Amino acid sequence: VSKRYLILAEGKSSDPHYGKTMRGVVDYSPNPTVAILDSTRVGESHKGIPVVGTVEDALQYEPTTALVGVATQGGRFPPAWRELLKQSIEAGLDLESGLHEFVSEDPELVALAQKHGVELRDLRKPPADLNVPTGENLRLNAKTVLTVGSDCAIGKKTVAIELDRAAQRRGLKSQFVPTGQTGVAIAGWGIAIDAVVADFIAGAAERLVVEGAERGGEILFVEGQGALSHPAYSGVTLGLMHGSAPHAYVLCHVAGATEIEGYPGSPLPPLKEIVELHERVSLPNRPARVAAIALNTRDLDDDGARAAVAAVHEETGLPTDDPVRFGASTVLDAVLRVLQS
Amino acid sequence: VSKRYLILAEGKSSDPHYGKTMRGVVDYSPNPTVAILDSTRVGESHKGIPVVGTVEDALQYEPTTALVGVATQGGRFPPAWRELLKQSIEAGLDLESGLHEFVSEDPELVALAQKHGVELRDLRKPPADLNVPTGENLRLNAKTVLTVGSDCAIGKKTVAIELDRAAQRRGLKSQFVPTGQTGVAIAGWGIAIDAVVADFIAGAAERLVVEGAERGGEILFVEGQGALSHPAYSGVTLGLMHGSAPHAYVLCHVAGATEIEGYPGSPLPPLKEIVELHERVSLPNRPARVAAIALNTRDLDDDGARAAVAAVHEETGLPTDDPVRFGASTVLDAVLRVLQS
Repeated sequence: VSKRYLILAEGKSSDPHYGKTMRGVVDYSPNPTVAILDSTRVGESHKGIPVVGTVEDALQYEPTTALVGVATQGGRFPPAWRELLKQSIEAGLDLESGLHEFVSEDPELVALAQKHGVELRDLRKPPADLNVPTGENLRLNAKTVLTVGSDCAIGKKTVAIELDRAAQRRGLKSQFVPTGQTGVAIAGWGIAIDAVVADFIAGAAERLVVEGAERGGEILFVEGQGALSHPAYSGVTLGLMHGSAPHAYVLCHVAGATEIEGYPGSPLPPLKEIVELHERVSLPNRPARVAAIALNTRDLDDDGARAAVAAVHEETGLPTDDPVRFGASTVLDAVLRVLQS
Repeated sequence: VSKRYLILAEGKSSDPHYGKTMRGVVDYSPNPTVAILDSTRVGESHKGIPVVGTVEDALQYEPTTALVGVATQGGRFPPAWRELLKQSIEAGLDLESGLHEFVSEDPELVALAQKHGVELRDLRKPPADLNVPTGENLRLNAKTVLTVGSDCAIGKKTVAIELDRAAQRRGLKSQFVPTGQTGVAIAGWGIAIDAVVADFIAGAAERLVVEGAERGGEILFVEGQGALSHPAYSGVTLGLMHGSAPHAYVLCHVAGATEIEGYPGSPLPPLKEIVELHERVSLPNRPARVAAIALNTRDLDDDGARAAVAAVHEETGLPTDDPVRFGASTVLDAVLRVLQS
């Protein structure tokens, strides 16, 4: 039986930040999503997928797997979620979760899963044998491109996937390298590097680019995490930057954003400073340039988007486009120019 | 019974890098070290403490606790160490370890410890309830000073302790804030932030400065970790910088060092660039300056040390001294000037 997702997105199915796992899986997973659970939007649909209010109501669509489709701050389960998880297990669904709290280590859920013969899978559970980098990241027969960003949840994973797909359409041997729970759900491999022991962030990132090259990637599009100036997640960002040892960055930014989301009083530096900062903190023995800006124009209409792209190009002097809205060609062209230079 | 340490430092008791836990505890712990185990140096002594070749030979000095006194790359136990740990437990000693592999989760050691009625303590085991920062780090009634460095294992912890002691001698309400396994062993509290889940580095660092203030610290000297340009540990460094939200840095550097230790081909940037980089990556809403350079002159004689201090002062324009060799006054004066400005 192939996998058919019921995505649990209670209260968050229209939230651009905390619903990002849902949207990523709906848009990019090879496995279909047959229903979305969000009792605040019953009867609506998302890209043609029905929104239901209970696990029971979802069963008519014959899901095989319930996926926790929301992110929570700090990756903990809100207490109300436990009932949803139990109902999914009791309905005979496998359960996949990308939160920091592991369902496969929860005694109550483990017992229930055994009783109902279903599997519990934690997308964020790291391999047990991680270590520090070996230097292999600097000796790969591949070119590495890392998406970075001015904030979290603004499209770093999406841009990496779109660039990978565009490169493959051009006949290039490219590979998307997943580094977060949603990327792992979509690609079926990878490590959520924000969940590894802090000392092993770079080592885990190295392992991922090594695997990307072993999977045949000659160009690796690595999913970025966090942001260099983010008050909570910057450590993950820098460890990923150094461990994946990219040759080029694509900087993701939401048009018009001026502050870190959820951290009032945390201003974003000007884009030119963000560009320079990424280039400055690159490893001295693997200098990397920002090849292009991927501008997220989700809050604008088409004319507004075009104007925003032009303004950011003017401001930074860098090739700029919204790869989701207008296609990834402009950004990919810029990346390839930097990789060949 | 008060704690009396036997420090297990097999093969590493004279290694400035991998023997750093041993040296930190010998120099700064309130609990005495009565013997050091290193079969390659039997009969020698370290600061008056006898070096023995076996656990059995150490028992004449009446230790209560065996402490793993070495660091290993990646924090794993070399296989040969298992015998030493078992012998210590069988001799009735409690066991303390600061490695990433937890002795308290090793079934064989746990069973043996139960049989012999001794305790297993992992200095690097993080609290279970960590999360992302709340913003309390920006609202403390304390001034925070973080030691940072051009590399690992060059004195960031030592400098923080020396500055704390010098400040206390001046009657200031200062507090050393431990962030690594050796600091935790010395101070008896703290979190080894290199062992927390990557997403919670900054959150753990925030918790530590909050606790430092609660313990009465009006000036907090926070033990730094790793280095911003370190290929393996930079993520921990940046997360600690953002989570502890310091008002000032003290930059630690080994006189004459030009490359990251253990990573050939990883050059150190010039000191002025390292200074500027730390200031640049500080949170936009908590800008921080490097107040002084703490120069480690361990490889030089007194004249060489004085010349090196003068040269770095000349190169950087910053107050420079070796706080271990010449006392912490110069660096502390510089820190207090920046905190008051």
